[in-house]
Amino acid sequence: MQFELLKTDAGCAARLGLLSTPRGDVETPTFMPVGTQATVKSATPEQVAESGARILLANAYHLHLRPGEEIVAAQGGLHRFMNWPHPIITDSGGYQVFSLPNVQVDDAGVRFRMEKGGQPVELTPEKAIAIQQKLGADVMMAFDECVSYPAPYEAAKTAMERTVDWARRCRESWTNPEQALFGIVQGSTYPDLRRECAERIAELELSGIAVGGLSVGEGLDTMREVLAFTVPHLPEDRPRYLMGVGLPEDILAAVELGIDMSDCVIPTKYARTGVIFTQVGRLRVMNNDYRKDRFPPDTACRCYTCENYTRAYLHHLFHAGEIFGQTLATIHNIAFYMNLMADIRQAIRGDRFPAFKAEFLERYLREGKKRRRVG
Amino acid sequence: MQFELLKTDAGCAARLGLLSTPRGDVETPTFMPVGTQATVKSATPEQVAESGARILLANAYHLHLRPGEEIVAAQGGLHRFMNWPHPIITDSGGYQVFSLPNVQVDDAGVRFRMEKGGQPVELTPEKAIAIQQKLGADVMMAFDECVSYPAPYEAAKTAMERTVDWARRCRESWTNPEQALFGIVQGSTYPDLRRECAERIAELELSGIAVGGLSVGEGLDTMREVLAFTVPHLPEDRPRYLMGVGLPEDILAAVELGIDMSDCVIPTKYARTGVIFTQVGRLRVMNNDYRKDRFPPDTACRCYTCENYTRAYLHHLFHAGEIFGQTLATIHNIAFYMNLMADIRQAIRGDRFPAFKAEFLERYLREGKKRRRVG
Repeated sequence: MQFELLKTDAGCAARLGLLSTPRGDVETPTFMPVGTQATVKSATPEQVAESGARILLANAYHLHLRPGEEIVAAQGGLHRFMNWPHPIITDSGGYQVFSLPNVQVDDAGVRFRMEKGGQPVELTPEKAIAIQQKLGADVMMAFDECVSYPAPYEAAKTAMERTVDWARRCRESWTNPEQALFGIVQGSTYPDLRRECAERIAELELSGIAVGGLSVGEGLDTMREVLAFTVPHLPEDRPRYLMGVGLPEDILAAVELGIDMSDCVIPTKYARTGVIFTQVGRLRVMNNDYRKDRFPPDTACRCYTCENYTRAYLHHLFHAGEIFGQTLATIHNIAFYMNLMADIRQAIRGDRFPAFKAEFLERYLREGKKRRRVG
Repeated sequence: MQFELLKTDAGCAARLGLLSTPRGDVETPTFMPVGTQATVKSATPEQVAESGARILLANAYHLHLRPGEEIVAAQGGLHRFMNWPHPIITDSGGYQVFSLPNVQVDDAGVRFRMEKGGQPVELTPEKAIAIQQKLGADVMMAFDECVSYPAPYEAAKTAMERTVDWARRCRESWTNPEQALFGIVQGSTYPDLRRECAERIAELELSGIAVGGLSVGEGLDTMREVLAFTVPHLPEDRPRYLMGVGLPEDILAAVELGIDMSDCVIPTKYARTGVIFTQVGRLRVMNNDYRKDRFPPDTACRCYTCENYTRAYLHHLFHAGEIFGQTLATIHNIAFYMNLMADIRQAIRGDRFPAFKAEFLERYLREGKKRRRVG
C-alpha cells in the first residue's frame, strides 16, 4: 500500500491524498462504511459500491468469533467470502474487547468469555495479526488497549505504554507485505500521553497511523481538542485514520485538523431506524409529516433510493415493518456520506475547505430545524 | 389485457399462453411473487425482476389499511410508489378478511375492526373494486367469501352464492377498462358447488378466472382432486389463476391440470428462515453441514446469489442475524421458482410436460433426502 499526499488546503490542515492498494485506489479524505460481520448491514456490496464507497471496515474480533478466520480463509479470504472486490480494513478488536464485562488484561494480552456459551477466548497482539492475515485484510490494525472516557491519568498511561508495546509486537508478527498495518495512538485526553504515543508509534514506521480512543462519549469539543494536540505529532507522509467517527459535523472537524480516513456505524445504524441524512439536516422518515410526502428522501441526492422512491414510500415501509425500508435508507445514507467526502475533496482541491465547511454546516444544522415545516 | 392460448401439451391439460398487458407480456404458466405491502419482502424490485419475475401480487386489503389507496394514488399509483414497472395483480382481500377474528358477514359485505386501534372497517364488493382501481392494479380480483377447510356443505353453498353475487357487483362497479378483473371460483371441496360457481362466474365474461379456497390446509391430494373437477368447467380462452399455491410439487400438479398462474409467499417466506430451494430439494442453510460449504446455494442456478456467494457465507449471515442473508435467499428462491416456470413452459412447448414433471420430482424429492450427506 502506498499513500501519496497530494496537497494541503491553503487555509487549514485539511489534506487531499491517494491511498493505492492492490485492490484499487482510494481518494482521501475518505469515509469507510462498517461491515462488522462481513456485510454492510442490509445492503448488497454492489449497492454499497454504487453509493460511492471504495473501502470498508470489517471486524477481526467479530469474525474470529463467528465464522472464524479459518473458515473465511478456506473460502478464499474475506473479499471473496463477502463479494467485495475493493479494499477492506479490519479493526483488530481492541475497542470491542475492552467494552466487554469481565475482561482480564495484562501485558501479554486479554482474556474473556464468549457471551454465548461462555467459552474462554484469548487475544494477543500476535493472535490479532494472525487473524487479520488469515482474513486477508488489505489494511490490518494493531491490537491496542482503549480506555473508557474519562480515564484517570495512570490508567491512560498504562494503556498507552501497552498500546505501544503491542504495536511493536504486531509489527514483529506481521509477515505478509501485501497487507498494510496501521498503528493506533491512545492516551485519552492527555496531551503528553498522546504526543509520546504518536512519536513512539511513528518510530515503528508502519503503513499508517490511527487515532483511537475517541468517539467514546467525550463530545465534539473535546474530540477536536485532542485531535488538535495529537495530529501535529503524526507523520505527515502516512495516512491518518480517526477511528469510529462520526456525524457529518465530526468528520468535517476532523478533516479540518488533518485526518484522512474515518469509519462509523452512524450512517447505516441510523438508516435502520429511519433516520435519513439530507443536505438540510436529518429527517426521521417515520414522522407523520412524511406520510404523504412526494419528494425523494433528499432532494439534492441522485442515489438509487432518491431517484426511485418517495419519503411517503419509506414512511410506509418503516411503519409496515418492511426491511426494504432499511435497505433504501442504508443506500441513501452511505451515498450521503460519500457525496460529503467528494465535496470535501473538491473543496480542498480548490483551497476552500474552511468556507465549504461553514456553508455546509450553516445549511445542514440551521435548516434542519425548519425542515418539519417545509418538508 | 389479452390472453392468448398458444397450445396445450399433447399428454395432459398443461397450457402454454401469453398474457398481454399495457405494462408488458407475461408468459404462462407463470408464478407471481408476493409483495403484500407494496414490496417483495427484503428485495429490491430490480432484484425481483432480475430473478425473472414479471408480475407481482400485492394486497388491496393490506394497502387499504396502510398506507391507504388515496396516498398510493396521490403518489402516482402502486407501480410508481413501489418502483415496479411491470404488471401487478391485487388480491381483493377476501381471503385475509375471512381469516380475521370477529368478522361480521352478510350479503352486503363484511365488517371488522382493525387489529391496531380497533377502528371499524367495512368492505363491500364495490369498495374492493374502488380500492383496486385507485391503486392502479393491472389485474383486480373480485371480492369473494373464502370458507375455511373443512367446510359444511351449507356454509360452502352460502359462501359460493355470495361469491357469485359479489363478482357480479364487482363487475358492475368496474369502470376502468385499462384494468382487468378476474372472478373467483369458490365451493370448497364440493364438485357441484365448484361446477356451479365456475359456470356462473364464467357467464360474467370477466378477464380471467381464479380458483380460490384452496391451499387452506386440504393437502396436495385434495387440492388435485378439487382442481380435477373444477378446471374443466373454466372457460378455455381465459387465464386460470390458482390462488395461494404453493410448493414446487403443488405448482406442477396444478399446471398439469390446466392452471396458468399462481402466487405464493412460500419462496420469499421460506427464504427469510434460511430455507433454500434447489434442484435436489430444500436446503436449510443454518444446518451445521453448511458451515464450511464452498458451493453456491444451488449448484444448478445462475442467479446473483448463486453466482457470488457460498452456502458457508449464507450460513454465517443467518447465524449472525444479518438481514442480508434474507435478501440473498429471497433472490435465489424467486429465481428458482422462475426457472422452474421457464422449464415448465419449455416442456409444454415440446409436448413433454408429464415426463418433465416426473423427472423433476424424482430428482427434487428423492435427492433431497441424500443431500445432507453429499452437500
